[in-house]
Amino acid sequence: MDKAELARELAEEISKRLRRSRTRVPIGVSNRHAHITQAHFETLFGKGAALTKFKDLSQPGQFAGNEKIDIQGPKGAIKGVRLLGPFRPKTQIEVSWTEAVVLGIQPPVRESGDLAGSAALKLAGPLGSVEVREGLILARRHLHCSAAEAAAIGLSNGEVVRLRVGRGGERETVFEKTVVRVSDKFSLELHLDTDEANAAGARTGDPAYIV
Amino acid sequence: MDKAELARELAEEISKRLRRSRTRVPIGVSNRHAHITQAHFETLFGKGAALTKFKDLSQPGQFAGNEKIDIQGPKGAIKGVRLLGPFRPKTQIEVSWTEAVVLGIQPPVRESGDLAGSAALKLAGPLGSVEVREGLILARRHLHCSAAEAAAIGLSNGEVVRLRVGRGGERETVFEKTVVRVSDKFSLELHLDTDEANAAGARTGDPAYIV
Repeated sequence: MDKAELARELAEEISKRLRRSRTRVPIGVSNRHAHITQAHFETLFGKGAALTKFKDLSQPGQFAGNEKIDIQGPKGAIKGVRLLGPFRPKTQIEVSWTEAVVLGIQPPVRESGDLAGSAALKLAGPLGSVEVREGLILARRHLHCSAAEAAAIGLSNGEVVRLRVGRGGERETVFEKTVVRVSDKFSLELHLDTDEANAAGARTGDPAYIV
Repeated sequence: MDKAELARELAEEISKRLRRSRTRVPIGVSNRHAHITQAHFETLFGKGAALTKFKDLSQPGQFAGNEKIDIQGPKGAIKGVRLLGPFRPKTQIEVSWTEAVVLGIQPPVRESGDLAGSAALKLAGPLGSVEVREGLILARRHLHCSAAEAAAIGLSNGEVVRLRVGRGGERETVFEKTVVRVSDKFSLELHLDTDEANAAGARTGDPAYIV
């Protein structure tokens, strides 16, 4: 590589990093929740029952349901875990580590959908219960964005970035190892669980900055 | 300042920072707990009752008591909050933000002992209850060390540092704005609450590194 080419590439990289660092990435705090299969839903809520919309979520097409379930581990239970829609091909329950301690389970840190070997637990609804052999995870920190946003900011799918949260506050924190997920089903948002958000003194809508 | 002096000072500063960054600072995860006055203790446990030792804590002279209390906020209660000894001149209750949400209270982030204007709550014990007008806080992240440790590592009382926690792990995190407290009543330890430790995937005894 000659000097001119090196200089051009460095200038591009620096320019990308400056552009990124000025982008206000909104934080979305994920409370404990469950994605569920239609079959599990019908076991818990009755044959032919429908998952009804409580409100739309920030990610296009995703919604929070009115329906809630209880989840049970060997040590304790957590009541009123909200179901998200639409139905998924596999049931996936996401809790914070603090909540996993209540359940008495040590789930792995995983990306959404990566459930092989994740933790077992019991789900209970008004009309039945289900033993889920794998499905409980701690969510890996991730940043969602659309393809257009990724291009504008200079991010690529699968890239691992670090974000500063709570800038200027008493609990300012830099979260390393945040995976970028690019899809036109997504819009720009840093997803943190309640342990992460609370540790950094952050609430939904607060800004994070790629550093 | 002449060049030789500048070079000497820079070399000293760099050397200090390298020494610091190699020091393995053990993490102590603080569960919710309460420090209590003798008067409050006697209201909750009876006149003349004694706070009895469950186990010594890592900080010299401090101990976890066998006695526990319940704490009550406007929205909910948390049962079984362990009392620490010895008695203090002011009652101070430390919870995580996750727990503060359960109570329905938004306590400030404070250093230990800085209680003016902190949050109110109700304490309940087996023989009585107390309305505490101020005393509930979220603990400000802090690093304890003895004077000898401070000198060896190059830290000073009141200094604000940043620490890397969960190095190499999936939840690696840098905690900014960690205040250093030097006292011969202390030994080297980074104190995090359960939200902070869980957000970073850390447990008591895991290492943190000043960065």
